This record gives sequence, structure tokens and C-alpha cells, in this order.
Amino acid sequence: MLLRAYAFVLAAVGALVLGQAPRQTVSLILTGGAVVTMDSAGRVLSPGAVAIEGRDIVGVDTPEAIAARYSGRESIDTTGQVVMPGLINTHTHAPMVLYRGLADDLALMDWLQKYIFPAEAKTVTPEFVRAGTRLAALEMIESGTTTYADMYYFEEEIAAVTREAGLRGVLGQTIIQFPAPDAKTPAEGLARTERFIKQFAADDLIVPAVAPHSMYTLDTKTLKAARALADREHVPVLIHLSETSDELKTSKTTHKATPAGYLESIGFWGPRTIAAHGVWLTPADMAILSRRHVAVSHNPESNMKLASGAAKVTAMRTAGIVVGLGTDGAASNNDLDMFEATRQAAFLAKLQTGDPRAVPARAALQMATIDGARALGMDRAIGSLETGKRADLITVSMTSARQTPMYDPLSHLVYVTRGDDVRTTIVNGRILMRDRKVLTLDESQVLSEARALAEKVKAAVR
Amino acid sequence: MLLRAYAFVLAAVGALVLGQAPRQTVSLILTGGAVVTMDSAGRVLSPGAVAIEGRDIVGVDTPEAIAARYSGRESIDTTGQVVMPGLINTHTHAPMVLYRGLADDLALMDWLQKYIFPAEAKTVTPEFVRAGTRLAALEMIESGTTTYADMYYFEEEIAAVTREAGLRGVLGQTIIQFPAPDAKTPAEGLARTERFIKQFAADDLIVPAVAPHSMYTLDTKTLKAARALADREHVPVLIHLSETSDELKTSKTTHKATPAGYLESIGFWGPRTIAAHGVWLTPADMAILSRRHVAVSHNPESNMKLASGAAKVTAMRTAGIVVGLGTDGAASNNDLDMFEATRQAAFLAKLQTGDPRAVPARAALQMATIDGARALGMDRAIGSLETGKRADLITVSMTSARQTPMYDPLSHLVYVTRGDDVRTTIVNGRILMRDRKVLTLDESQVLSEARALAEKVKAAVR
Repeated sequence: MLLRAYAFVLAAVGALVLGQAPRQTVSLILTGGAVVTMDSAGRVLSPGAVAIEGRDIVGVDTPEAIAARYSGRESIDTTGQVVMPGLINTHTHAPMVLYRGLADDLALMDWLQKYIFPAEAKTVTPEFVRAGTRLAALEMIESGTTTYADMYYFEEEIAAVTREAGLRGVLGQTIIQFPAPDAKTPAEGLARTERFIKQFAADDLIVPAVAPHSMYTLDTKTLKAARALADREHVPVLIHLSETSDELKTSKTTHKATPAGYLESIGFWGPRTIAAHGVWLTPADMAILSRRHVAVSHNPESNMKLASGAAKVTAMRTAGIVVGLGTDGAASNNDLDMFEATRQAAFLAKLQTGDPRAVPARAALQMATIDGARALGMDRAIGSLETGKRADLITVSMTSARQTPMYDPLSHLVYVTRGDDVRTTIVNGRILMRDRKVLTLDESQVLSEARALAEKVKAAVR
Repeated sequence: MLLRAYAFVLAAVGALVLGQAPRQTVSLILTGGAVVTMDSAGRVLSPGAVAIEGRDIVGVDTPEAIAARYSGRESIDTTGQVVMPGLINTHTHAPMVLYRGLADDLALMDWLQKYIFPAEAKTVTPEFVRAGTRLAALEMIESGTTTYADMYYFEEEIAAVTREAGLRGVLGQTIIQFPAPDAKTPAEGLARTERFIKQFAADDLIVPAVAPHSMYTLDTKTLKAARALADREHVPVLIHLSETSDELKTSKTTHKATPAGYLESIGFWGPRTIAAHGVWLTPADMAILSRRHVAVSHNPESNMKLASGAAKVTAMRTAGIVVGLGTDGAASNNDLDMFEATRQAAFLAKLQTGDPRAVPARAALQMATIDGARALGMDRAIGSLETGKRADLITVSMTSARQTPMYDPLSHLVYVTRGDDVRTTIVNGRILMRDRKVLTLDESQVLSEARALAEKVKAAVR
């Protein structure tokens, strides 16, 4: 520490003596830890520093170089920590945290029909969605997620809470054929979605999206209308795709095509589209998605817990598909920890291919950061620590017994680190959590509100 | 809290008024949290209390009933926590924590021949084994493991450190055909093992064991000698079995039999034997193990990370085999967190069978506790919270955002809980960790010692 302070002073004095330009004052400097940039060169600065001005990253370099150029109004010592891009969760249903652990280990139809659907029918209200999103936001901030993609009902409530909590969100209003808590018909759902998009157009944190639930819960007409709306409003599309073998069977029976093939045949695929799961994609499906630049959100924990299967992530990546990671909703995971999703993506790929080299640590981290940003069409703004990008980053403690010794920070981030190791979460230059204290939400109020609502959930499935 | 104190006083006064027997003073009472007993009736007391006298559990009941009968010299308020049996890790190589993250994502032979074998040849000394075991013990105590089964070299050093740290261990001196760090020949290994067994006979915490490495690294003569030694000394046998498809192929080529079949043919199988992995067991193999009362240690994380395959745990359990859980060594996992192993066992079974009902939360917890105790032949002493058993137990915080709301403590213990949630670890009635402060090891010294040795490891594989 003394040595580092000394270098800092030396650099400042040096600048004066040599008549260099005076140091620029910036809002925040993080310095001392290993900076894992996730940029295209794979730079790891150990130690490194990041300078932030307002919502932007203005410098990523050695502590000495940053100290020579910048003076921070605020500074965070990240010694013993990794500084890295915030994690990007490309698929979840935030308010479903209120159903976590409500029912597990059941056949899919029993789980849905005896628990999830009745609970949703009786409990999903704007108030419920707000409380659930607050709990989800608390958990995401605590575990290092800075951007998330969501599909649920009353998405405008989710957007309002997300903005308050300070998280970045690609938030899709769900459209589904049967009566939903926020829309009696798909037409009503489409109209709600359009209003929602206009309400959050040009927001600094929220990207509104269209979220047609899936090909098996929507008719052709509504699927086409959803795509047309997204094209008209220039917003992303989120959809479930080939999650289960049942979906594949149903599609083949009804449409004589795979889900991806059917959606191709009706002209559904287009830019900035994220297909969640893709467990049962065929090589021909992968060729379609690659050609149409459709990204896949891989949800390894949900796919294992619900016994959906093992997505062929290595084959997808080879086919040129951008693959991001997701946790799925907490009803089927049961948490929103992207570090666990990242580890599971590495583990599952090795099992699925029989090759321990599949999805190595660096690839898993890419999927959790820059590839997630690519999947959401936001890689020019987020997903890596580079000058000019938004300041969405986290610091992660690396000194616990289970992280000792450390030969390679990338290995440790994937194989022995959890969300609980995150110390600082910053989005758009704003500190959302400092030393594990969340600053934008009242933790005890969020938790007690969630516990109160859980009583209503219990009553709904009794 | 007030209400609870009131009930306590009321019970005490009631006992006096009614002329009941005076309360027995015991060493420790844990009260207020949900007690997940893992007994054969599956009792969960919410709230509950546990009374401990010396090394034994003397009462498991409601807080009121315990308060009426016992007065604790010391008491721990477990409100907001689960009190449960300590976790039992049935397969690891403790000192290998010093190699964690040294090399990942490699083909098995590259990993072994370029990293693990050279590192072991150049760094494994008694000092290294002691330092590695201290680090492993620290991590195990911090993550709620109270008993572990180990196979490594210089096992007497591991035993000494384990006893100091206060953990319970079934510790197997490894016997292997090629020159090992602690024995040039298998004969020397057998002699070392015999000395080790005699040294730790009748220890309260250490159960010495014979650990012939595997059928593919030992000849028939040594395998038979290892079994004979175990029978003579009445100690357990630990062995790797059917971990990879290569092992299966080698066995079929060399012995015209599966590994389990070959070991059956030479009379190797006997009581108190734990076979680690069992990924490639056939139905005929399972019948042999069941008939011989051989237990299997399932290591789902290692099996996934090394791409060994998915063990057929449901089929094994159906065949009557006792299946415990293990982390394997941290070089192939990369941590010793049994909560992660438990979650992965539930996830992997669902994927392997295609049935989300496979290995439900309760079964996964059984494998991590009472079935682990059965596998080690110690279920009369440990593995559940019951009067008369040793006081090996942990308390686990259940109030984080990711654990909220809580509909079912068993679900949460498996699907959203980690080792870091453990607050208290007690073995044989001794508190090893209180409020996450480990009392039997000097954490900062253990970590700095490990970091110093890591430099030697780096040099060894350079």
C-alpha cells in the first residue's frame, strides 16, 4: 500500500516537473486490483486501474498510468480484488423470485399446473411485480449482475423499479395467447407492449422489448404482429425457443418443422433477437439462427433442474451464433447468481461434449459479459472494460480460503467464485453497492415485503 | 425473542412449581432456528433446539422442551438459521487445494502429465501436505463439512493436522504401483499404511484407512494385499472405481472384465469399502457392489469438469447401493464446498435421467449427510441429529436476498445455499467456527503459507 501511494505521488510530481498536462479530475477511480477487461485482446492488468467520469469509462491502464492522467473525486482501493465488467443475464423473469423454492423436483406439467400457473393467476398484480422486481434487483446487485433481459407481465412496473434500483434492463413485455395477468388477449398484450415501448423510449437504462412467449403458446398471426411491432419500433425481441423435447415434438406435429424452422417459415426471425434455451436445436436450426443473427441465451442451471436437456453450446458457437448466459427465473434455478450460471455453463459443456476443453474459463466469462452484450445488441456500450464504454463494472474479492492460492484469476472467477464475493457494483457510473451494502434499495424493507407476499403465494397454492 | 425468553422462564418456573426434576446442565444449547434432523422420520423442528453435553447430542426437540430439561453453560441463538448435521465429504485429496486452478480445461492426460504429476513429484513433502491440509481444513470448516474421507500421500501428516483442526476424518494412506512421494514401491506403501493405522488406532476423530489407488494403477497382488491389510486391521478401504471410459476400456482389454467385475473376481470387495466415482458402472457392476455392501462416493462436479460422465445415481440407489457425495480434490473441482456438490448431485441426476423428479432436495441432503455416514460405516455415530450421536453439526444462515422468501428449508439448503452461509461448525461437541470465525486454525497464517507454497508449485510446472 505504501509503495503504491508512493508511486502515485511520484507520478503526480513527475507530471508537474516534466511540464505534462495537468491531471484531469474524474468522478471515480478504482485502483490496485487485477483488471480483467474482457476486451478483444483479452487484457488482464495485474494490478490495474479504471477511471470513470460520469457514466463513462475514460481510462483502463496500470495504476501508475491512471494516476498520472487522472485525479478521482472518489477512489476505491481494489487490492485483493478483481475489477471486471458487470455480468449480463440474458434471460430471466425477475418477479418470479417470489416463487423460488415454492415447488421443486416435480414433473414439468405438475410444477406448472399445480403451482406456477395457479400462483400466477392469483398473485400477479402490479404491486406483486414491483415487490418481486425489488427483491430480484437486490439479489442481482449483490451478485454482480449489471444488465438483465427480462420477460414477464406488467413489464412497465419492472422497468420503473429497475430504473430506481439503477440496473440496466432489456425488458420485454410478454405476449401470450391465453389470458395473462395483465392482458386478456394477445391483441391487448400487443397494445400494452406498444405503450410500454413508447413510455421507455430513449431511457438511459431501460431498453424496452417485445417478448412473444414462444412458438407453442402463440398463433402465427400474433407472432407476425410481434415481429412487425419490434421492427416498427426498432426494439429487441425476446422469445423462448426449443427448450424441451415436447416443444420440438409439438412443433413437428403441428407445423411439420422444428420450432426454429417454423419461425423461419413465417418470417419471424430478425435482428436483435434473443432466443432463450435452444436445448433442442438441430444443426439446420443453428444454420438458420446464425444466418439471421439471432442470439441464444443459454440457461444451464434451469435446463438441468427442469431436466430439459443439455444445449449444444460448443456447436452453436462454432456455427457462429452469439451465445449469452441466463439464470432463467428463480422458480426454476433457484437464484439469479450469474457466477453460478457461468460455472455451470463450463461444467455442462464439458459433460455434453465429453471434452474437458469445451467452454474453458475464458469462453464462459465471455458468454457472461461481452457475448451477453452482443446478444442484446449492446456491445458498443457494455460487456468489457474499455475507454468510451459505459461504466458498468464490479469488483470481486479473491482472498477467501476457497480462492487460495490463485494461479489464474480467470479460472478462479469461473470455478470458485460466487455472487457473494462481489464487493462493489457500478452501473452507468453510479455505485449501486459499496462493500456489500446496497445503496439504491432498502434491503430489510425489500425482504420483509417479499416475506409478506410469500404468505399470499402459499394461500394461492394451498 | 422476548416471547421465546418468556417461554424459557415459564418452562423453568413450571418445572420448579410442579416439582419436576431439576434441569440438567449441559455444555451447549443451540436454540431458535429450524432443526433439520435428517433422521429416518425426516423430522424438521421449526423452531427447534439441540442440547449437547461433551461430545454428544443429548436432546433434539422444541425450544420449550429443551429449555425445560436442560440448562446450557453456553447457548447459541440460531434464529434465522437452519441447524443440521455437518456435511460428510466422502472423497477428496485434501492437500491438492494447493493445486486448485493451476491448470483447467485440458485433456485429462495433458492435465495429469504436464501439470499434476510434475507438480506432485517436485512439491509433495510432509511440509507441503501439512500446509495443504490446513488450507483444506480451513475451507471445510468454513463451508460446513465436519467429516471427510481422504486419499493422499503422507496421510499421517493429514491425520495430525485434521485432529488439530478438530475435524473428523476417514483418512486413507494411498498405495500405488509407481514410485510415490512417500513410498518407492507398493510394498513400502503397504508398510507405511500399516504403521499409520497403528498410530491412529482408537483415535476419537481419526479413522485410518487403506487406500489402494485404483485397479488400473495397481497389480492384483498389491490389491489383494491391501484388502488383507484392511481385514486384518478392521479398517475401511477407499478406492477409485470406473471414473472414466478409458478405465473401463483398459479393464476390459486387460482383464476381460469391468473394473468392478475384475475386483470381484480377485476377492477384493469387502465391508466398509467406498468406491469413488462409479461413473461407468454397468447394471451387473451395481449388483456386485450392492451384494458386497460397497458404497459409492458420487462426485458430480469433478465428473463434469473432467468430462468423465454422469454417474447413474438413481439406478445405484434403486439397486440398493449407499451413495454418498464427494467434492474430489480441489485440483479438479475447484473447491471443497459440499453445498455445491449437493446441488450439483440434484441437477445432474435430473439431466442424466431426463426426469426433474430424480434426486429431489431431500435425497440430495441425505446423500450429503446420513448416507455419507452410512458409506463410511459411521451412521451410528454421525450423519443425523439424534440423541446419543456425536455432536457434529452446523448452523446455516437462511436470510439473504437469494434465500428469500423461504417456503421449504430443504429446498433452500440444496438449491440456493452455499458453504459461505454456514455460521457455526461443531465437531464432537467442539465449536470449530463461531460466527464465521474459525477457532482452531490461524486463518491469515494458513493463507500466507499456502501462497508461499504456490510459488514453488508454479516453479515446478514452469
